[in-house]
Amino acid sequence: MNRRRKIYEGKAKVLYEGPEPGTLVQYFKDDATAGNGKKHEIVDGKGVLNNRISEFIFTKLNGLGIPTHFVRRMNMREQLIKEVEIIPIEIVVRNVAAGSLVKRLGLEQGTQLPRSIIEFYYKDDALGDPLVSEEHITAFGWATPPELDDIMSLAIRVNDFLTGLFMGVGIQLVDFKIECGRLYENDMMRIILADEISPDNCRLWDVKTRNKLDKDRFREDLGGMLDAYREVAQRLGILVETDNALTTGPRLVQ
Amino acid sequence: MNRRRKIYEGKAKVLYEGPEPGTLVQYFKDDATAGNGKKHEIVDGKGVLNNRISEFIFTKLNGLGIPTHFVRRMNMREQLIKEVEIIPIEIVVRNVAAGSLVKRLGLEQGTQLPRSIIEFYYKDDALGDPLVSEEHITAFGWATPPELDDIMSLAIRVNDFLTGLFMGVGIQLVDFKIECGRLYENDMMRIILADEISPDNCRLWDVKTRNKLDKDRFREDLGGMLDAYREVAQRLGILVETDNALTTGPRLVQ
Ligand SMILES: Nc1ncnc2c1ncn2[C@@H]1O[C@H](COP(=O)(O)OP(=O)(O)OP(=O)(O)O)[C@@H](O)[C@H]1O
Ligand SMILES: Nc1ncnc2c1ncn2[C@@H]1O[C@H](COP(=O)(O)OP(=O)(O)OP(=O)(O)O)[C@@H](O)[C@H]1O
Ligand SMILES: [Mg+2]
Ligand SMILES: [Mg+2]
Repeated sequence: MNRRRKIYEGKAKVLYEGPEPGTLVQYFKDDATAGNGKKHEIVDGKGVLNNRISEFIFTKLNGLGIPTHFVRRMNMREQLIKEVEIIPIEIVVRNVAAGSLVKRLGLEQGTQLPRSIIEFYYKDDALGDPLVSEEHITAFGWATPPELDDIMSLAIRVNDFLTGLFMGVGIQLVDFKIECGRLYENDMMRIILADEISPDNCRLWDVKTRNKLDKDRFREDLGGMLDAYREVAQRLGILVETDNALTTGPRLVQ
Repeated sequence: MNRRRKIYEGKAKVLYEGPEPGTLVQYFKDDATAGNGKKHEIVDGKGVLNNRISEFIFTKLNGLGIPTHFVRRMNMREQLIKEVEIIPIEIVVRNVAAGSLVKRLGLEQGTQLPRSIIEFYYKDDALGDPLVSEEHITAFGWATPPELDDIMSLAIRVNDFLTGLFMGVGIQLVDFKIECGRLYENDMMRIILADEISPDNCRLWDVKTRNKLDKDRFREDLGGMLDAYREVAQRLGILVETDNALTTGPRLVQ
């Protein structure tokens, strides 16, 4: 069947050449990784769920006028996206102290932050994705100051929407990570949201039970990762396939 | 003789109550420390040299209209300063890649940076003075956005002056660290330069020989730390005492 050219294989997704110039196919794998790939497992069905959850969120963001790379879902594991020039920065928005922030600044996990904090990490696995500031980003030309302004506005809008969305289904959005890229269209350049938004790159805590419904289940060996992701999808009203269907769909051909 | 009340003893300096309200006496010790105090030695005469070098630089900065806490040198090891409310941020200005930047971003030591980069570190020994960004600083209220603007303008002016000053005497200013504080005067608050500027908190490379003339001699066990500091003072035209005089002057009474 598909004989598409593979463009890039990452830890969680594969990019293939798309049907038209300027498009790509984003394929969601079942690989769960943590600690910069040191920890690695296959979680059957995770890719299907993330494809669905990311589709759901990106569709709503597009609807709100927040520009994203998402065009449409193609099948259980693939979505059609617009190709962008990825800005080599991971943008993290934090509402509540967790993860590395807790360690770096000596805060207690779960502390409400005085306000949302945007952090930037330089995308470089060999360096362990180091925290950087606007100074580093602009000095090394990874993004220009106006691009950073666009990225920060976009990040805040995404945070506003996601906070509300998850609050509505009894989930606290603790933090999340996004990636942005440059889209060249009609002789114009725009910063748009790329990559994915799923429990792989959000911290999501059940408001009542305080249960973690995200990748921390894997990072911290809590178990029940797939159930947690399915719970998130279900609460968002996303039609959830049977366990059987979850593990179906085109598998990655190596 | 002096029975002043000790306000604070740090790794390199002691602060005593000053002769008038709003003043302090800053006493320069001979202690050399690195790695957050893990490495520690007494380098006889270092305090005397740093007192002199910092006096020289702060006097010139005052003359340029860059506000500092420095009032006057009192003796070989002490200077009169204005008391400020220290902003708990170490401000590092980098012109050339060295030290932690080399490790964090995988640069080669000695690489000229595309432009000067200002970094902020949260002053907290227990946390190892972590790198922070404007977002952290303003979110946690360590400084307000307008204060940060003042701090950055001040840091750039200091960098401009020091770069020129050292260039004139055959020394490359690689990077340096400063501290700023709030001065309340005539119902006004101003951000002024505090602490010290000396080879303890600059990286200074001899332009011809590439020799290090700063605290890296101690950090990297290169030896000749005092000679390097004396060389810096001498090049700046600061009257250098004999070795004997260097180790004289009021010693710290515990
Ligand atoms: N619209 C897009 N156009 C081009 N590249 C994209 C787009 N959206 C996402 N990407 C890139 O596709 C890759 C997705 O793969 P994956 O998330 O598995 O990578 P990864 O293992 O996390 O590593 P890294 O993100 O550091 O490359 C990422 O490199 C991401 O930056
Ligand atoms: N004008 C000033 N008013 C009040 N405090 C000052 C002033 N100038 C410097 N300081 C503070 O005085 C102390 C100087 O001591 P020293 O440099 O030895 O401290 P340290 O061991 O480096 O530790 P730290 O700087 O983390 O407190 C510092 O805490 C510095 O912030
Ligand atoms: Mg990724
Ligand atoms: Mg100090």
